[in-house]
Amino acid sequence: MAVDVPGLVEQARQGRPRAVARLISLVEGASPQLREVMAALAPLTGNAYVVGLTGSPGVGKSTSTSALVSAYRKAGRRVGVLAVDPSSPFSGGALLGDRVRMSEHASDPGVYIRSMATRGHLGGLAWAAPQAIRVLDAAGCDVVLVETVGVGQSEVEIASQADTSVVLLAPGMGDGIQAAKAGILEIGDVYVVNKADRDGADATARELNHMLGLGEARKPGDWRPPIVKTVAARGEGVDEVVEALEKHRAWMEERGVLAERRRARAAREVETIAVTALRERIGDLHGDRRLDALAERIASGTLDPYAAADELVAGLTGK
Amino acid sequence: MAVDVPGLVEQARQGRPRAVARLISLVEGASPQLREVMAALAPLTGNAYVVGLTGSPGVGKSTSTSALVSAYRKAGRRVGVLAVDPSSPFSGGALLGDRVRMSEHASDPGVYIRSMATRGHLGGLAWAAPQAIRVLDAAGCDVVLVETVGVGQSEVEIASQADTSVVLLAPGMGDGIQAAKAGILEIGDVYVVNKADRDGADATARELNHMLGLGEARKPGDWRPPIVKTVAARGEGVDEVVEALEKHRAWMEERGVLAERRRARAAREVETIAVTALRERIGDLHGDRRLDALAERIASGTLDPYAAADELVAGLTGK
Repeated sequence: MAVDVPGLVEQARQGRPRAVARLISLVEGASPQLREVMAALAPLTGNAYVVGLTGSPGVGKSTSTSALVSAYRKAGRRVGVLAVDPSSPFSGGALLGDRVRMSEHASDPGVYIRSMATRGHLGGLAWAAPQAIRVLDAAGCDVVLVETVGVGQSEVEIASQADTSVVLLAPGMGDGIQAAKAGILEIGDVYVVNKADRDGADATARELNHMLGLGEARKPGDWRPPIVKTVAARGEGVDEVVEALEKHRAWMEERGVLAERRRARAAREVETIAVTALRERIGDLHGDRRLDALAERIASGTLDPYAAADELVAGLTGK
Repeated sequence: MAVDVPGLVEQARQGRPRAVARLISLVEGASPQLREVMAALAPLTGNAYVVGLTGSPGVGKSTSTSALVSAYRKAGRRVGVLAVDPSSPFSGGALLGDRVRMSEHASDPGVYIRSMATRGHLGGLAWAAPQAIRVLDAAGCDVVLVETVGVGQSEVEIASQADTSVVLLAPGMGDGIQAAKAGILEIGDVYVVNKADRDGADATARELNHMLGLGEARKPGDWRPPIVKTVAARGEGVDEVVEALEKHRAWMEERGVLAERRRARAAREVETIAVTALRERIGDLHGDRRLDALAERIASGTLDPYAAADELVAGLTGK
């Protein structure tokens, strides 16, 4: 059934949570109207500041996200939360698992919370998350917090979607080494040592300081990732995190880094969509028997597979 | 340095093992002369009968492969062996690990043995193995045995390269369940219960018979995968395996199934090469700044990523 896309977008702009949820479902599910939705959203995007939150399980990502939401709400900002779980097949507007800690914001009309599963998704994270971020952006969110559940490559991938990446650690988890393994030491713009009321918080911060080479000299103007200690469950240190985020944003804006990051992100996004589209077109060739004819010639030895691929690509591209 | 491809191909046809090894290295390494090599090989291919051997570690794959080589050599056939290890970064002509059991054939000029690592390979198995099979085919091998080390998806992938797939099991390893999990119960044309002198061989064969539904009625003319018991280390039952392979080949030829499988394989191969080529072209667009210009427009909200991808694809395809 065709959806009234302009109407839905207008409702989303007016802050109707159901319209926002509906739009995310449309882009997430690769609906036939996906292109119409994306075209309608484009002129409304580019305002939201996208913050990625990553870290090993147990460091308190959901609690930290929730605390950040509170801090931004106090400052009157509209906030979107995208909780991405690359291992889960469940998706939708419901609060899943420990996302229940965020339920204090569930009735706040200035907050959108969305869980997104990416397992089995066409193109995975790289494909689904940016579209959902665009919806939240267009819906008037000043800040979009993208929190990943789980660890590994997908976290690094999500970080590449953010304007600013926050890497969370907690004391006594051998986090430094874990973080190094997961490759997240390279992606943090701001580091947070959560659960700082526990033993070993200072040691974790020191270890991190050392691993990041923060003691070493930097070129003037280079960004030096701050390390902020928090007790997110009690809201301690959260204002300092917001402050660090604002500083990073200002630093990026001054130097054109923000615009550069967003261009790079858009380029990757376009590449992913284009490759997917071309792959589909090749798949369609099965239908008109062109691929079958080439395969026949290869099997009979009158054509090699590279020459056949050239013909196939030429047929698609006219080059 | 440019290689004398026609000369190398001629030497390979005359049975020079170094020429064969050199050609495989060229196709494996995506040399600039890859296309020239593939074009020169094409008219010489299509003669080799490609047999895939898969099974969990410990079932005796290398021993079985070696025993099959002996059996085919006795019948005067030239044999190529491609041992594919998806987890290994090492590749080349050397005998690796337990491939030493095949060393009895190392000095036989009628046998080519090649280890192939695919980890980190562009396109992985799907890309590298078919090209190496083509070299062995063109070099005059009557039979090419493709043995995979390791388990899982890659085995199923390799099986899709073969004319006939042999699935190996051994008693007392809970193989039935393992096989089911790995999805290899769907791919076997011939099943071998190796180490049949051990306890439980009959039980494994019965379990397999049950899981494959071999007791059930089939349409006349349908292929009923045989289950052969072997003790490969002593050469017992190996002639029966060869017999089963020949029967399957004859069955496929009678019904046009062999030609059909080879066409499907060629189609998949062409698709993989074409998608890789298109992906590279998109990557090249970074150079001429077309992608950057699109990214700029997306970042500024004047274009959405889907419309941008359409422009990109249109630029490539003229459609």
